[in-house]
Amino acid sequence: MTEQQRARRPGGRSARVRAAVHQAVTDLVAERGHGNFTVGDVAARAGVADTSVYRRWGTLEALLTDVAITWLTDTSPIPDTGTLEGDLRSYAANVARDVTGPDGLAVLRLVIALSTAGEAGVQARGRFLAERGRQLEGMLARARARGEHAPDGLDILDHILAPMYVRVLFGVGPLSAAYVDALVDRVLSSPAPGSGDAAAG
Amino acid sequence: MTEQQRARRPGGRSARVRAAVHQAVTDLVAERGHGNFTVGDVAARAGVADTSVYRRWGTLEALLTDVAITWLTDTSPIPDTGTLEGDLRSYAANVARDVTGPDGLAVLRLVIALSTAGEAGVQARGRFLAERGRQLEGMLARARARGEHAPDGLDILDHILAPMYVRVLFGVGPLSAAYVDALVDRVLSSPAPGSGDAAAG
Repeated sequence: MTEQQRARRPGGRSARVRAAVHQAVTDLVAERGHGNFTVGDVAARAGVADTSVYRRWGTLEALLTDVAITWLTDTSPIPDTGTLEGDLRSYAANVARDVTGPDGLAVLRLVIALSTAGEAGVQARGRFLAERGRQLEGMLARARARGEHAPDGLDILDHILAPMYVRVLFGVGPLSAAYVDALVDRVLSSPAPGSGDAAAG
Repeated sequence: MTEQQRARRPGGRSARVRAAVHQAVTDLVAERGHGNFTVGDVAARAGVADTSVYRRWGTLEALLTDVAITWLTDTSPIPDTGTLEGDLRSYAANVARDVTGPDGLAVLRLVIALSTAGEAGVQARGRFLAERGRQLEGMLARARARGEHAPDGLDILDHILAPMYVRVLFGVGPLSAAYVDALVDRVLSSPAPGSGDAAAG
């Protein structure tokens, strides 16, 4: 069995190491903030050798990106309910739930902190956002294929995700179900950028 | 520095110390990030004694809040053009210019980082946001006093400020004048929360 095959097999030692390392990163980001811990700290916290972390991820930035993407993909999968409205409501409710949890805030801060981590950090942030953007564009493409009027992906970033992110980061109020639904309503009822026609509500 | 800023600044030794300390904080936040420098680092950078900083500000958190509030007040004063639309367009354009500058990003990161700085940080963040909220509410109150239909202050946070903040923090595209104007258009043409009637565009 090759290294790669072992890494892919669920439930083995490799999967346990990965889970322990991911949790160690999430904990350290929450406790100390990005930039205040090393690969050595992560390894010690996870109970594995430094070399195990370096061999698998190469750099701290690569590890941080892997944690962020995995967290998003696992905890906030893009829904496929059969309608754009259903998808958006489900997606927005999931994001609201996740970003108000302690891990969610840590991951949000990590993405932001990557911007100050030099070129490697900026590249890692780019990969993270590109992956999430690709998933969102898939949801919008399905809606367009059904003949639905879909907003731009950036509209979802600007008017559904950004308000929730900023409210959590600034500590402004809870993200109630009514508030989150109103954000979705607003995007669904806004005209597409560059077009003069109003979308169906 | 604008005429107005010069007029407000008396120019004595105390004012020079304050300006040097503020610039040192802005530089250190940009270079190292919040949580990675001390009052001693700030004093050394500003060329003043530690005791001068402690005597004037008391704690690092108090100093950081002072820097953030001063920065916002000086560089993004709330406009008073005589119409809500004029005020919002001018305000949004100013914010876009400021947050895309290097100091603006540092201050944004500082506000966010305060959330992880324990109770003192959270209180400092609260004072910072309360001050900015108070200024914005003043602008909206003037509009209502003129009989204009004004949005909630939180609508401005959610749909004008948050999209710009998140785009800058995530490194997504430039904030073009057309983009910023479209954010304002959207808030001006959205029905007020809880009411069924559409505002005039």
